[in-house]
Parts: sequence; structure tokens; C-alpha cells
Amino acid sequence: MCQPPILSDSAPPAPRLVGLDWGTSSLRAYLFAADGGVAERRAQRWEIQHLPAGRCAAAFLAIVGDWLARWPGLPVLAAGMVGSRTGWREVPYVACPADAAAIAVGIVRFASECGVVHLVPGLVQGGESADVMRGEETQILGALALEPALAADSLFVLPGTHCKWARVERGRLTSFTTYITGELFALLRDHSLLGRPARDSEGDGTAVTSGAFHRGLAVARASGPGGGTARLFTARSLFLAGDLAATDVLDYLSGLLVGDEVRSGLANLGTERPPCVVIGDEMLVARYRAAFAALGGGEVRAIDDTAPTGLWSIACAAGLVNVAGATG
Amino acid sequence: MCQPPILSDSAPPAPRLVGLDWGTSSLRAYLFAADGGVAERRAQRWEIQHLPAGRCAAAFLAIVGDWLARWPGLPVLAAGMVGSRTGWREVPYVACPADAAAIAVGIVRFASECGVVHLVPGLVQGGESADVMRGEETQILGALALEPALAADSLFVLPGTHCKWARVERGRLTSFTTYITGELFALLRDHSLLGRPARDSEGDGTAVTSGAFHRGLAVARASGPGGGTARLFTARSLFLAGDLAATDVLDYLSGLLVGDEVRSGLANLGTERPPCVVIGDEMLVARYRAAFAALGGGEVRAIDDTAPTGLWSIACAAGLVNVAGATG
Repeated sequence: MCQPPILSDSAPPAPRLVGLDWGTSSLRAYLFAADGGVAERRAQRWEIQHLPAGRCAAAFLAIVGDWLARWPGLPVLAAGMVGSRTGWREVPYVACPADAAAIAVGIVRFASECGVVHLVPGLVQGGESADVMRGEETQILGALALEPALAADSLFVLPGTHCKWARVERGRLTSFTTYITGELFALLRDHSLLGRPARDSEGDGTAVTSGAFHRGLAVARASGPGGGTARLFTARSLFLAGDLAATDVLDYLSGLLVGDEVRSGLANLGTERPPCVVIGDEMLVARYRAAFAALGGGEVRAIDDTAPTGLWSIACAAGLVNVAGATG
Repeated sequence: MCQPPILSDSAPPAPRLVGLDWGTSSLRAYLFAADGGVAERRAQRWEIQHLPAGRCAAAFLAIVGDWLARWPGLPVLAAGMVGSRTGWREVPYVACPADAAAIAVGIVRFASECGVVHLVPGLVQGGESADVMRGEETQILGALALEPALAADSLFVLPGTHCKWARVERGRLTSFTTYITGELFALLRDHSLLGRPARDSEGDGTAVTSGAFHRGLAVARASGPGGGTARLFTARSLFLAGDLAATDVLDYLSGLLVGDEVRSGLANLGTERPPCVVIGDEMLVARYRAAFAALGGGEVRAIDDTAPTGLWSIACAAGLVNVAGATG
């Protein structure tokens, strides 16, 4: 390969870090400039599960191989399910509560067949609220770097297949809870009796602002002390009664599930109401914003695309990049 | 066919009713004597869903055709999903609250290709607690006939794919709630990330009295105001931590789901605690009995095989059988 010399006059300033946000379904790569800004970003679909060993290395080279060839020795930091048992190399969890420094200490330096890779550890919580996360800790640290005032006391909600509710107090991630709302929705949609009318219909999936979604939220709100699981079957009963169209069943179920998650999360908070921030894409944020409003959770803020900032913060805390005045 | 004459000296006393308990997965037939006792019973596996039209008639003849040939004109009463939209003939629901007389009034007399069949209506409940049942009303009426003292004020729990919690007050079924606990368990077992360790292991399914089941109950009990959905992911976290064996995951999930159902049902009862009766087979009763004990619901009674008595009661209330002093 013909590579430009690193220090030629025409070359851009040398980057300082390659960051990877490597989840179960997507792989995003960031090339960081000396100021922590993202000079270039790439993404590809990816299924980390069910893949033969060796596929991680191939995917890694496919997405960032040219960067590493051009700038040999550039540090690489990866966060997410890539550090899980079914990922590239298992990284021991760091115990909660934890801050950026504790997470940086847990980084595993891994001599892969593609060169040295640093893997961000996930977080673990013990006891009867046993829980784990991988990747969300990086997104949360990114949000804290973007908005330092949130470090004092905030609640972060990260919707998805396994939605995380994480509390940050005095700069430390102190506790968190995983709701399997996204997975439950998919199970009910694809395999349950409740979802059958939608599977049999010509509907085009769910719509964020539909009346059926808000109706599901209202039923979750009115579910009483027993909670929303006692109301899931209403998706069937209302359909049988002709009171819920087949094409509205999924939106209704989405409202009921997200509403019940928010009901549960707010109930567990009790009277404490730290500022709440939803980290996610626009469509998910809209659903959670509506659920918080309907369930008495008030206004929530939204931040998106915090993973690169989080990767940079952790790299700084770990001394992987040598930048004066770095965040973290 | 050579049939014995009905009134020959050697013939048994002529029966008075053919009853069918016809659900989504099983079909049970009962031949009732004049005193309401079951002279003969038969059962077969059956999948009422996904079958072509006409299969109901064939199944009907296969299981009771010889009885009807021997005793022409014998009344036939069937309860359960056979009266649903996907059954033999859709029967309009009767609105709750309802007693045996109201249910008898809702019976549909249906001239099938196999002769006249009477179909028991299911019950419907409107409003934000919209719900339906088909078949359980017959089991509950059977329990009331077997134990008339329960008619004053009782809570009936009928475990299954779609578990029913039904309140009976002054002889009327006043309200009910469906929990999709059994379906959720099957979805999580067969399709979820949580169930994967069990699917990948050599385990032999669930055991009623296992420690993992009781552990799931304890986690449901300790789930706080947010409820057990906030704890489902612990099945994954504990497994990853090496704190829950792959072969224990399903029992743990079963305990968590049944425990959360009982938590929810008791919470919705508030301070009211009518006597509770579980109607079901021994294995399910054992699980619910343990859940009630763990969740502060106290002792529960158990009754099984109430459907035939319920069919007889409804037949009496409808005047289908001419028996002095019949129950119902």
C-alpha cells in the first residue's frame, strides 16, 4: 500500500486515538483529533452474538485497519459487548459505585492479532439487585463530560433492548437497573398471542406519536399498585372487543411496556426526583419523554451520541492520550 | 353398528348430559349420570388454534360420537375456547358481574353438522381493566357448586398460560384480571437472551420445589414498589456472575414471574383478603401456594377438576337437564 508519510506537509494533524463503540448489533469507530473532537466516524451493522471466533479481528481490521496502517501505534480503546464473554476478549466488570478513574483502572490491555487493543470494562452491581452493563457506562461518562453539571445528581435512562436506568451522584455511577422492555416488546410482537393480530395485519409497524401508544401509557398509569403486567392482556381483550385495531396493537403494547417501565422506575425512586436525562436516538427519546410526562415524571432532557465523548474521557483518565487539559 | 336397546335390563341408567371442557390445548368429555356424577370421562390433546374449519366437528365426533349414537337426543354442553372466534362457533360474551343464571342465559344453541350443541359463553369486563375469559367461568362455577360457602366472598386463581384472578361476591363473579405469566415464561424460555443458558444446557426443565424457584420468589418479594419487571434481568446478571447455574435459570425465572404475579394481585386487593382458592393441577398449585406464602398472601386452598361440576351446574341452570334438586 502507498501511504503518505505521517509528517508530510499535506497530512492532517496526527490523530490521537481510535475509539470503538462495539455493541451487539452495531460497531461504530471514531478517529479522535488532539482536542478530543471526532475527526472521522464510521459505522457498520454487526452481530456480536453467534459468530465464530476470529470474526472480531476481521471486523476490527475492516473498519479501522487503514487508520492503524496510516498511523501505527495509535492507541485503540473499545467499549461495549466486545468485552463480554461472547465478544472478543472477556473483561472483568468493575464494581459499582464507580467513576471514570475506577473504570479506567479496569481497562484490559489486550494484544490481539491486530495489535494492542484496550477494552473498557463494564459495571457490575451485586446483591438482590444484581445487574450488569457494558457500553452504557461509556455513554454516561460521555454525557457527564458534555454536561459536567449532571455529575452532582442525575438519573440517566438509556432505552434499548435492555434499557438501563442509572443514577449518578457526585461523579460516580452509584446504582442501576436493567429493564428488558425492548426485548419483551419484540417477544410479544413476534411470538405471543397478543401480537398475532399485528402479525396478521398489513400494518407498517409502530408510530411514535400514535393515539394507541398514548392509550397504552394511560393504561399503565392507571394500573394501580399491581403495576402494568396486570394490564398486558388488555391488548388482547380490547382487540377482541373491537376496541383496538390490529394495526394499533403494537403501539398500544409499546405504550403499555414503556409506561410500566417508567412507572416502575419512578416508583423505585420514591420522592427523590433528580434531573433525568434520556440518552438515545430521537424516536426512542420521544417515547420516553411522552412516558415520563404521562406517568408524572415531569420534563426530561435528551442527549444523543455521547459514546465518542465517553471513549475520549476514559482514554484521558487512563493516560492513553497525552493531552493537556483533557476531560475526565 | 349393533347397539344395545336403551332400556334393556342390562343397560346402565341412561345418562343425562354430555359435557365438554374444550380449551386451546385439550378437549375433555364427560358423560353425566342423573345425579350429576361423571359416569365416564375421556380426554385428548387438541390444538384449537390454526386448524381448518370442520376440524371441530371431526374432533367432536371422535370423542363423543358413540355416546350420542347410543343415546340420541342427549343434550350436549361445551365450554371454553370452542366458543371463541377461532373455535367452532363464536359465542357472545356475557358481561361481568355474572352468576350461573346469567351465564346460562347466554348459552348459544348451535345446530352443528353433528347435531345440536350448546355453547357456554365466556365473560367480558369493560373499561380500562378490559378482560375476557372462556372456560374459567365454568371451572369457578364448579368450585362454587362443590363448596357453596365460597360463593359469599372468594378469590379464585386459575394458573396457566393466561392466569385468571377472579373475585366472587354473593354468588356473582364480579371482576377478574388475566396475567400472561405462563406465556411470558414460555417466551423467555424459548426466545429470550435470559433463557439462552437453559436452552444451551442439559437441564431437564423446571422442578417445583427447587431452591432457584424460591430464590426467584424472594427477589420478587424484595422488588420494592417498582415490582418484579425491574428484576427480570437479574436472571442474566446472576448467571453471568456465576451465581446462578444454567440449569437453575428457568426455575428462577418461574419463581420471579409467579412471585411478581402474586405480588401484583395482592397489591391490587389492598387490605382485602378474601379466602383464596387455586384451581389447577398439583404442580401449578404447589408453585402458587409457595408464592402466596412467600409474598404474604397466607394459606391458599386448592381444588382441582372443577370443570365437570361447572358444566353440570350450568346445564341445570339452563334447564338442559331435568333433575330434581340439581345444583346451580
